[in-house]
This record gives sequence, C-alpha cells and structure tokens, in this order.
Amino acid sequence: MAAMPAKPRAARDIRALVFDVFGTVVDWRGSILRECRALGKRKRLKVDWDAFTDAWRAGYKPAMARVRSGELPWMSIDRLHRLILDELLARFQVTGLDEQEIDHLNRAWHRLDPWPDARRGLALLKRRHVIATLSNGNVSLLTNMAKHGHLPWDCILSAELFHHYKPDPEAYLGAAAMLGFAPSQVMMVAAHKDDLRAAQACGLATAFVGRPREKGPKVKVDVAPEPGFDLNARDFVQLAGKLAKLAP
Amino acid sequence: MAAMPAKPRAARDIRALVFDVFGTVVDWRGSILRECRALGKRKRLKVDWDAFTDAWRAGYKPAMARVRSGELPWMSIDRLHRLILDELLARFQVTGLDEQEIDHLNRAWHRLDPWPDARRGLALLKRRHVIATLSNGNVSLLTNMAKHGHLPWDCILSAELFHHYKPDPEAYLGAAAMLGFAPSQVMMVAAHKDDLRAAQACGLATAFVGRPREKGPKVKVDVAPEPGFDLNARDFVQLAGKLAKLAP
Repeated sequence: MAAMPAKPRAARDIRALVFDVFGTVVDWRGSILRECRALGKRKRLKVDWDAFTDAWRAGYKPAMARVRSGELPWMSIDRLHRLILDELLARFQVTGLDEQEIDHLNRAWHRLDPWPDARRGLALLKRRHVIATLSNGNVSLLTNMAKHGHLPWDCILSAELFHHYKPDPEAYLGAAAMLGFAPSQVMMVAAHKDDLRAAQACGLATAFVGRPREKGPKVKVDVAPEPGFDLNARDFVQLAGKLAKLAP
Repeated sequence: MAAMPAKPRAARDIRALVFDVFGTVVDWRGSILRECRALGKRKRLKVDWDAFTDAWRAGYKPAMARVRSGELPWMSIDRLHRLILDELLARFQVTGLDEQEIDHLNRAWHRLDPWPDARRGLALLKRRHVIATLSNGNVSLLTNMAKHGHLPWDCILSAELFHHYKPDPEAYLGAAAMLGFAPSQVMMVAAHKDDLRAAQACGLATAFVGRPREKGPKVKVDVAPEPGFDLNARDFVQLAGKLAKLAP
C-alpha cells in the first residue's frame, strides 16, 4: 500500500475529485423500489418489491466478480443488471412483461435520484476542482443519470473505459491518468470504505461520506468517520466546506 | 457508405449530438495567438506569432496520420502538440523558455475560448438531446477546456477512448455505442465537411455549422451549406431551432 501523505498537504494539493455513484451520489434503493412498485401497480403484480430490489443489488458484486476473475468476458453493468434481472423475474414469478417493459425496468438504474445534498454539493465542489464520476456503471448509464438528476459532472469516467471494475487498481490509476493528474492529486469520494481503501492503495486521496439510508430504513450501515481517510464528511456540502478550508 | 435516411425522419430520431471541437466549438486560432502574443510580450520575443500558430495547427494532421498509419504508437494530442511545439521553438528560434513555460504554452490548447454562440447554443441543445464532444483532443484537454469555457457537456468523448483518431470509423461508431444509441440516432456536428462525410459513412446523421473565421481574417474557408448533410446552420443557436422544429 502506498504511503499516505500527511493529511492537510494531501487535501491542499487535490485537483480532481472522483466519485463513486451508486449509494454515494444517488439513492439506488429508494429509486429502484419506487419504479418497481409503480410497475407492480400498473401491471397488478403481487411481489415483495423490497426483497426484489435488495436481491437485484445483491447480485451485482458476484456478477462483477465473474468479470474481474476472467470467468466472463468484459460486460457492461447494463448487461450484468439484465442477467440478474432475468433470473429475478423467474424467481419472483413476475410475468406478463414484454421485452420493451423489461428493458425499461433494467434502465431504472439510469434514472436514480440524487441524495438531497448531491446537486448543491457538486456545484460547490466544481468551483475549485474537476469533478468526475468513477463508477462501475457504464458511460451511457452515468450520462443518462446525470441528465435525469441534473448532476453537473465535468467528465464521465467509468470502469467501462478501462475494462476493469473497481476495486481493480486499473480503474483508479486509469482515472487519474485520463484526467492528467498524479494519483495523489485525485481524491476518491465514496460511501463505501472498501472502495476508499482500494483507492488509497493506489495513492489517491480519500474522502468518506456516510450514507446512513443507502440500504433502506431497516438496515444499519457503517457511517463512522475514520481517521485513516483524508477527510470525513456527512454530505457533499460539508465536504466542499472542509476542502475549501484547506485550499491554499 | 451506409444509405442516408430521409432527412426529416433522421433529424426527428436524433437522441444525441456529438461535436467536433477545435474550430467547431472553440476558436483555436484566436486563442492560441492571444496566448503566444502575451508570452512574446512577457519574454520580449520577436516572433511572427501568426505564422507560428498556423504552423502549430498545420503540424497536427500529419502527426495524427503517423499514429493512424501505425508508424507511431498511440499518442495523445497533448503529446503530439508537444512534439510539434518542440520543433517550432527551434525553427522560429524561440529561446529562454524553461520546461514549465513550454508545458504551460503546450496546454494553451486546454484554454481555447468558445465561439460567441457556443455556450448558449449548447445549453439549448442540451434540453432535448445528449450533447457530447467527439474530438481528437484527449479527455483531460477537453475536460479542462469545458471548465475554462463553461461548456455544459453531458459527456466527454474523445478519440483517446477508442485509440483511433477521426476520421477512423472506430471513433464515430465507438461514440454511438458508448452513448447506447444506434449510429442513426447520433448526429455529428462539425465545421469540417470531411469529418461529417466520414461520420455519414458510418451511418451517423450530420449537421454542418460553418465557421468563417476559423483560420483567421485572411483565409477563406468553405462555409457553403450542402444538401447532402441532414442540417446546415450558421451557428449552434440556429441549429437548436432547426432541430426543435423537427421534433415529434
């Protein structure tokens, strides 16, 4: 693991912020659940949509792991989401959807809503820094999501560009190189500590933003600040304030 | 060459617009000249900066051709600009610049100013369409330029992502695929007819926007509308109006 530079210095030298997206910028669970429930009502389906949504997300890491290990060839998240969805439609006995409806449901991941602070926080952070996605979501998914949620990214970066899913180092190092900065000039922002630790191992600076409601009202998630990260903030607006204080 | 769909239909189905950048969105010549002159004044250099600027740009196509032919390995435009610049500094006998000053001059291409209609036109076009760059400039150059000129791109696409410079078909087809659209749903916007013809050969729709001052006040450029393109417009604001009229 690369040595971590002293904190104030690291934060002062940051030129770009790259963001995890699902859970960090947008509320995937609330958004997917809302679309599923609306579909269920329209089609008069009796399905436990909470369980369905959680199972859809739970299928995501194992599916990526099959790509990361080389068992599956490179596949976009759109395609992985669809593989999982097809399984779930059978498992939850959801019937009566035609191909267009299934495709539209699969693209619910393109229409996730931002957390309430996200748009304002990103606008503040954009004043001093390059702000970019660094998500496992594919470019078209992230582009459509930004349009849907009015997220003011300077640049859409995705694992798709490197054909390596996070936490492979190629994704973090590729993003820094593509933005024209050294890893230490780039700060990874995420609600997930494993993502930040992988970024840190590549020499990126790190900011943890806890999202207590990512997994819904019933599941506790780890939002405890950790001194091992360069910054800890409760939302993007506070993050912008903390970064501005460290500016030269 | 792919058959061109009937014009009104093509324009009505357009989901994304991809833009050539140097000359089409930004005034490369006026911007580079301004930076060169300011540098010359500061360093008391006697150089014909008009000739210097034109020679810098003139070196660009041959340099890319060497990459396209495989004679050179993949190299970003930043690196190609620098190769040409190093030659020109010698040829024009520009001395007394340190590495940092030469690097800053090379990055003048990251600080090109938009044509007067560009920002407003793009904001209008963004309401109904995905708008993205499709430039031979590298991602960091285009990202920095967008920040410099407040260009509201939804997505930064570059030849760098495909390791193929325009007019290679991989660049046009890669951009459409990465945005998740069929080539016929994507419209290439450019001030250069050869770029549009190459896009058209890949099945993209085309819009020509003439930029009479691209090469400075003394050089006439071809800005004549051509019925072979799906749309012809005098600037991005007029293009937005023409596209809106064709919308369903």
